[in-house]
Amino acid sequence: MTAPEERTYDVVVLGAGSTGENVADVVVKGGLSAVLVESELVGGECSYWACMPSKALLRGTEALAEARAVDGAAQAVTGEQDVAATLARRDSFTHHWDDSSQVGWVKGAGIDLVRGTGRLAGERTVVVTDAEGNEVRLTARSAVVVCTGSVGKLPPVEGLADVRPWGPRESTSAKAAPRRLLVLGGGYVGCEMATAWQALGAQVTLLQRGPRLLPAAEPQAGEAVAAALGHLGVDVRFGVDVTAARREGDEVVLTAGDDEFRGDEVLVAVGRAARTADLGLTTVGLEPGEYLPVDDTLQVEGKPWLYGVGDVNGRKLLTHMGKYQARQAAAAIVARARGEQVDGAPWSATAATADHAATPSVVFTSPQVASVGRTAAQAEADGLPHRVVEYPIGSIAGASLFADGYTGTAIAVVDTEREVLLGVTFVGSGVAELLHAATIAVVGEVPIARLWHAVPSYPTISEIWLRLLETWRDGD
Amino acid sequence: MTAPEERTYDVVVLGAGSTGENVADVVVKGGLSAVLVESELVGGECSYWACMPSKALLRGTEALAEARAVDGAAQAVTGEQDVAATLARRDSFTHHWDDSSQVGWVKGAGIDLVRGTGRLAGERTVVVTDAEGNEVRLTARSAVVVCTGSVGKLPPVEGLADVRPWGPRESTSAKAAPRRLLVLGGGYVGCEMATAWQALGAQVTLLQRGPRLLPAAEPQAGEAVAAALGHLGVDVRFGVDVTAARREGDEVVLTAGDDEFRGDEVLVAVGRAARTADLGLTTVGLEPGEYLPVDDTLQVEGKPWLYGVGDVNGRKLLTHMGKYQARQAAAAIVARARGEQVDGAPWSATAATADHAATPSVVFTSPQVASVGRTAAQAEADGLPHRVVEYPIGSIAGASLFADGYTGTAIAVVDTEREVLLGVTFVGSGVAELLHAATIAVVGEVPIARLWHAVPSYPTISEIWLRLLETWRDGD
Repeated sequence: MTAPEERTYDVVVLGAGSTGENVADVVVKGGLSAVLVESELVGGECSYWACMPSKALLRGTEALAEARAVDGAAQAVTGEQDVAATLARRDSFTHHWDDSSQVGWVKGAGIDLVRGTGRLAGERTVVVTDAEGNEVRLTARSAVVVCTGSVGKLPPVEGLADVRPWGPRESTSAKAAPRRLLVLGGGYVGCEMATAWQALGAQVTLLQRGPRLLPAAEPQAGEAVAAALGHLGVDVRFGVDVTAARREGDEVVLTAGDDEFRGDEVLVAVGRAARTADLGLTTVGLEPGEYLPVDDTLQVEGKPWLYGVGDVNGRKLLTHMGKYQARQAAAAIVARARGEQVDGAPWSATAATADHAATPSVVFTSPQVASVGRTAAQAEADGLPHRVVEYPIGSIAGASLFADGYTGTAIAVVDTEREVLLGVTFVGSGVAELLHAATIAVVGEVPIARLWHAVPSYPTISEIWLRLLETWRDGD
Repeated sequence: MTAPEERTYDVVVLGAGSTGENVADVVVKGGLSAVLVESELVGGECSYWACMPSKALLRGTEALAEARAVDGAAQAVTGEQDVAATLARRDSFTHHWDDSSQVGWVKGAGIDLVRGTGRLAGERTVVVTDAEGNEVRLTARSAVVVCTGSVGKLPPVEGLADVRPWGPRESTSAKAAPRRLLVLGGGYVGCEMATAWQALGAQVTLLQRGPRLLPAAEPQAGEAVAAALGHLGVDVRFGVDVTAARREGDEVVLTAGDDEFRGDEVLVAVGRAARTADLGLTTVGLEPGEYLPVDDTLQVEGKPWLYGVGDVNGRKLLTHMGKYQARQAAAAIVARARGEQVDGAPWSATAATADHAATPSVVFTSPQVASVGRTAAQAEADGLPHRVVEYPIGSIAGASLFADGYTGTAIAVVDTEREVLLGVTFVGSGVAELLHAATIAVVGEVPIARLWHAVPSYPTISEIWLRLLETWRDGD
């Protein structure tokens, strides 16, 4: 056995998903050296098994639904969506699960790459083991940054692991629609994948333990998505507590009380957990399997050389928030390497401030659910003085032009003391691109009095802003 | 001849288009009495002959183009757009040119309505004459508000009036596509109507006097629209100076130098002029046919009882800006009626501040052109220190998911001293709803440093914001 190769960098990044790539990119641009460690595909979950393939699966269905909703155009949609072509399009977005273009980007950005499983081996030290058992020992002068993300959770259901369930990965990369798909969980993954596979030919049954879908969103969102899924033919069940799973031949059978649900596959989408079980965390006094506890500069508490960025810290499990945290953390690392003081002051270039109360997200169901900041329930829980303003999007001229019989809802949560927006939710067809206006208003803390001067163009769906302002004013 | 009926109101509004309706609505809500005077349809240009019907004509084509741009969905679009159904949908949006629902709204809002042609007859006085010659004499305690809008201009081309050309009104209300349509003018009306009628079956020839389309926008916008029109089959000609027009049988013939252009109809879309020719302006010492000179509270200079709101003041000829001015002017009228001081301070509730450098507009061509604030040329003309940042929208993951081969451009004009956005332009498919984010950023004067915290959701087209910020930073 030869001694492991040893290398020293300013920054060692564990995990080459979009978060890790962004950390490495920014620190290198800031003059530091960096190495990425990756045991799977460079590009990570989002590129191959989450955002990209799921949205590719959904987009064709959405575009056709939009055309069918316009009389005159609808008459041209006489054929059926080509499922094989849709799956092929999905495959092209994942580059057929080949990461060579991402590897090319990494090299071009001046970042080193070590393939293998990286584990901490004491302070500032990472040991990477590849498939052949070869080791590389990496030492970080400035920082080790953990960006290993999260994994789909398996709930404690008897026999579930043995039925070879789909996780989010299998649901986005399946080569064909199963005839009958059971979906366990009504969060965004369950709702998106139910929408996608029902449209692509599966008979989907969605089983939700609680009383509504998308429980973190405004209640109107889950209600609208549940109604739409039902309309698409998905069998949506609430209050279903699955306690056992088994295979009978090719069939999966789930048991919930006296009920049995049968399908060809079952997707388990009941949340995620930190991917920290096998990172050598005990060598630095941290608990394996837990989210890394970090401050607003993404530095792990009590360990100035260690950062946890992206899903792995459990703050916000969203690709774009991981990338945002990556930019802020990397800026903090670069500044500290230069000996600058970094204090994580809100809205500074080195603090992930938007994580707290200005996080945007879009659920690409039909209708879409786009939200940012606090829901009414969160404003209540935070003890903030607030009023909720709601307006039906279908009453907007731009929405009725967009689709015949458009239905949707906009909800704004307004801070009644500061008169700024705490949060906004849009539910409706094509609302994903409406969200960034709300994100800028929330993040910019733009006063309501000034928002009256931000005139929406007529006739766009964005005119909903005017109606929300009027509803706010008239409710005073 | 009996003496005319005499009535007194707090506010007399000339013109019941969307601008006049909004003025009347807001002053009535503020406790004043108001009457609307209208010689045509209540609801005005936008409802019957501009925004609504033009967008209704365009939407089906757009929805089909979007579906055809997604492999897998494209295969379902095997038929043709139903032109009759598209025209019928347009007719339903104009309520078949029947204003009874708008009249119902006016009454429900507590606003009086007098039908007929209103003319000023000295200070605070309007005389309305109906089709039978009956007169009503209206006196305004607080204000007369002129909201008569604008009319399509006829350029000084020999014989043009005699060929019975289409104006914007005829182009949006035509019962069928002409076989060959000539379009004179490459502004937004010419470009939108060329797009609409070419898709609905006409062979369109667009004649532009200058060297580019949409001359007020960033040059990239006109270039992209010209290329797209050409791709749709429109014959786009630049530098064409039409000097004469004649009919030969059913054919229209336009002469430009040695060239002749032949069509079945010709749309004249070379700009608009104030509709003030027949308003009795001379009775109050103002020039007929000119735009009304107003301050930021929309008050006519030197006449504290007279306001000019919407197109009629020539500030910004856009429905949404007319409605915005209406809200600000009405607030000023209500405040002054209460004896309050109104000074038109920027961004106050009584000043149309966004007119100056924060006006949004969307051209519903394919690609769409959505812009707000200053172009680079305007920033230059205003002597503002600025830098232009540009990024191709097609490189954004969300755009490539939206449409195969997406092409588009985003252009931001950044104030290099204050580090805020002066203006933003998006050119591309489906960018209309991206605009309001830029409008809020410009109006809210949100610093670039703060915009970094406004995270775009992945994978939406709005991620263009991140690329613009990076391009700005890296160009420093």
